[in-house]
Parts: sequence; C-alpha cells; structure tokens
Amino acid sequence: MAYQGEPGAYSEAAALRFDAQAELLPCPTSPEVFAAVASGRATHGILPVENSIGGSIHQNYDLLLEHDLPIVGEVQLEITHNLMALPGTTLEQLTRIYSHPQALAQCEHFLRSLPHVAVEATYDTAGSAKLVSEQRLEGAGAIASERAAEVFGLEILKAGIQDYSDNITRFLVISRTPVPSEAADKTTIVFSLPNEPGALFKALSVFALRDIDLTKIESRPLRGRPWEYLFYVDITIGQSDPRAARALAHLAEFARSMRTLGSYPSWKSRETARVSQV
Amino acid sequence: MAYQGEPGAYSEAAALRFDAQAELLPCPTSPEVFAAVASGRATHGILPVENSIGGSIHQNYDLLLEHDLPIVGEVQLEITHNLMALPGTTLEQLTRIYSHPQALAQCEHFLRSLPHVAVEATYDTAGSAKLVSEQRLEGAGAIASERAAEVFGLEILKAGIQDYSDNITRFLVISRTPVPSEAADKTTIVFSLPNEPGALFKALSVFALRDIDLTKIESRPLRGRPWEYLFYVDITIGQSDPRAARALAHLAEFARSMRTLGSYPSWKSRETARVSQV
Repeated sequence: MAYQGEPGAYSEAAALRFDAQAELLPCPTSPEVFAAVASGRATHGILPVENSIGGSIHQNYDLLLEHDLPIVGEVQLEITHNLMALPGTTLEQLTRIYSHPQALAQCEHFLRSLPHVAVEATYDTAGSAKLVSEQRLEGAGAIASERAAEVFGLEILKAGIQDYSDNITRFLVISRTPVPSEAADKTTIVFSLPNEPGALFKALSVFALRDIDLTKIESRPLRGRPWEYLFYVDITIGQSDPRAARALAHLAEFARSMRTLGSYPSWKSRETARVSQV
Repeated sequence: MAYQGEPGAYSEAAALRFDAQAELLPCPTSPEVFAAVASGRATHGILPVENSIGGSIHQNYDLLLEHDLPIVGEVQLEITHNLMALPGTTLEQLTRIYSHPQALAQCEHFLRSLPHVAVEATYDTAGSAKLVSEQRLEGAGAIASERAAEVFGLEILKAGIQDYSDNITRFLVISRTPVPSEAADKTTIVFSLPNEPGALFKALSVFALRDIDLTKIESRPLRGRPWEYLFYVDITIGQSDPRAARALAHLAEFARSMRTLGSYPSWKSRETARVSQV
C-alpha cells in the first residue's frame, strides 16, 4: 500500500489500520501515490481527504478526479500532534517550528502561545521531524506523530498539542479494481452543474426525494470556468442499491458532467465487521 | 485599509481597486487585519476568501465567523504570477522557490516542469520576494506580483506562470459598521444544520422556493463536532429585499445556528456604477 510521507507519517498509521498486514511503500508526494497504484508498483494507495478540524485536503480530491482509480475503502484515524526537537532542547530554546500546513492549522492556538517562534510550512509532518533530525537543527521543532519522534530520534517537548481533542482524519483507499458491489454501503460521486438558479437544490433533490443520506458535500472551483463548481458528494448507500442507480440517472438528466469515484464499505461497517469477528 | 502581506502583495492591489485613495496599512497576518479594524487603527480591512483555481481560503472564512465585523464590499482581481530572483540569476541556477501555498497551487504545472527545484511554502507571496531580496538568497526564486519584483529589486525570470489564464481572486472588505441596506445587492450568510438526512436540501429550499440565486456555497467542519458542518452561502439579493427576510426566517425554523456576515454591493454592481460615472 502506497502512502505519502516518511515512515512515521499519519498516512502510514492509517494504512496499517486499514490492513495490519499491508506491505508499505512510502512516496514523496500524493501524485506519486497515484502513479504507484496506476503502474502496479502498489496494489493500493491511501490518501487523507478530510480532517474534522482543518477541512478538506483539496489536492487529493483533485487527484481522484484526474485518475481513473476507484475508491475501495475509507479509514478514520484519531490524530495526536506532538512538538518534538533534538534531545535536550527546551521549549524556550525554540526559534522555529516546521510542519505540514494542516498540522499547523490544527495546533493554531498552541502556536499562537509562542509568539517569538517562526512557523514554517513543509509538505510532510514526519518529513519535518526528519529534517530537524538529519540536519541537527538546533532551536528547531517539528509537529508530528509520536512514531515520527521514535523513528527520527527526537524528544517530545509537548504531547497532544492539537487545539481540539476530537481531531480525526479521514483517508480514502484507492486501487485499480473496484470492490465487489455487495460489500459497498457508501458511494462517492462528483458532478458539475449548469450555472443556473436552483441548480444545486435540484441536484440534492435527487437524493433527498429518495431518502438517501448525504454525509459530505464539497465544492471545488472548475478550472478554466471562474465561479463554476464541481461538487463531491458522499451518499450512505452502495452503488448496487436500486435507489443509487435511480438517483444518478435523475442527476444525469441535468448535470453537466457526472462520475462515480467509487463505491466501498464505510469505515463504520468495516469496524462493525472487525469487532464481530473478534 | 488594513491588508495582509508586504507592499506588493495581491491584497494591496485589491485594496487600491476597491478604493484608489485608500491609505494602506500592511499587517503580518490575517488575524492582525481583523484586530486593526476592531481596534479602530483601520476603518476597513481586506481579505482574500476565494480563488477561481485554488478554491477557498478557509482561515479567512473562520476569522469572519470569530469576529463581529460586517462585510461591506467585495473585489475581484485577476492574478498574474511571476517567477523572480536576484538580478542576473537564470532559471537553470534555481535550486528552490518560495511562495504562498495558494500561489504554488496555482503554478503547479509550471513547478512540475522544474523537477530539481525544491518548493517551499511561506505565508506571503510578496514576503517571499522580500526574503530572497533581503537575505540575498542565491539560487532562490519567489513567486509574486510584478509590483513585488519592483518593490524588492528582483528580476522577473518568467512572467505569467499560473496554470490557467482566468485566475481571479475574490476579496471581502470588512468594517466596523454595515453599509446602508439600500446599496446592498449581495448577502453572505452562515448557518449550521442538524445532522439529519435531507437537512442541506431543506436549507437550500428556503432560497430556491423564492427564486433567490446562490453564487457560492462553502462547507467548513464544525470544531468539536466531527463531520458536522457550517455552511457559508452567498445570495444575490440585499438584506432589505423582503425575500431575504422571509428566507432567513424560514431557515431559522430548523437551522441549529444562523448569522448574516454582511449585506453589501456586489463587485458587478460596483463596477457598473463606476463605468457609468466615467
């Protein structure tokens, strides 16, 4: 299973929660996770798409659209951020802190309590820990997972520095072939609409009128068409449910474009199945 | 008018488009723009909230909610990104490029054509130009406006490097007192909904059933309540239009919370008024 980041990344932990036996393939960037799955170097890839505090990770939604790799599952992972530095460093000695922008956003109140510390955005939480460790950066901190501190030999100065305790990241798992439709109870759809009054209302009616619950709606600007949007929607039924086919046929009557990105077992149903096996 | 960034920032250009006579107050961060307006150091503040390519700037939406400063106007600005460096530098000599994550996202294709160049996220486009200039960083580039190159004495290596030509950023102007309601033809509302099937559909019905057009819908996670959302909606009527009052009263019947962030002249009506005065 390909994931973005260094060992110790939250994506690595999510991959192991999805499949504790998975062989892991770290990739420097999200596009490389997609490339690894497309080329067959990995059978699966895992990507964070949404955090309960920071919101959506748009780049990964855009990549889902650019590729033709179906979503086959989801994972929810509780995130605990830690401030770490070279062993022996004190909080007072820090002059700068590195981490991924999402992690920085999730620790905003804590960071504001350190007004004399510069905050630098990087592309990876565990990669920030690696940077501090490998370059022996004195006075520099990184925000990352407890495992990243272990992997890179850093000392945790303060644990659990996220602003809100219920900080959960949702990851999607992609593959080259879809899951068997009978196992799926969640479906992710993307569509664009004509720029007309009431268009989104009409689009949501195809679900509401069939009592199909939406767990998520996300809008993204349509490139090359200012102020027109793509909508990403998650519905709580599988693609083989007859209501899904009817709702999508109804949506196709007026959507400009439409695509199903995947139909897969929801994290809840996966967790329930796991508990009942124990 | 307070804006975030250094002189040469796109926000500075937007402030001058809103009011060519405005006295400008640069602020290091967006929270400081709000603080300047709240304290009376500035009568107005301007903030980017959405780009036609990169999407919404969530932090600024969150700040609008945290403060009680009404939106009094909007500005749209075409963005042209330029790669700049110390005079005499060639593209081949660059080893790293600094800019704001939104600017980096908007130049993604261009940046991918430079595989050996490290890309570093900073908090400001013009600030990146300042960094390269003041620290005389050899082999370092910044992505910023043409004016930033002038202000900081850098040479443009390549102009117009954004991936899409229709790259427009929308800014909101805040103040301590609202605009007279008769001048307003656009209103921004924020609300949260009970976590029930069809809740968003019902919410949009209050507008659709009154033929009120939505130009924007944005969802943000509700902090402390995983997978519940706040919705930000722009409607194309002013608050004094009787349909607005009826729609909001209807929405209040089932919304968990609801607030009007401002009712203001749309950019389109402002531009029309300006052209007719000439």
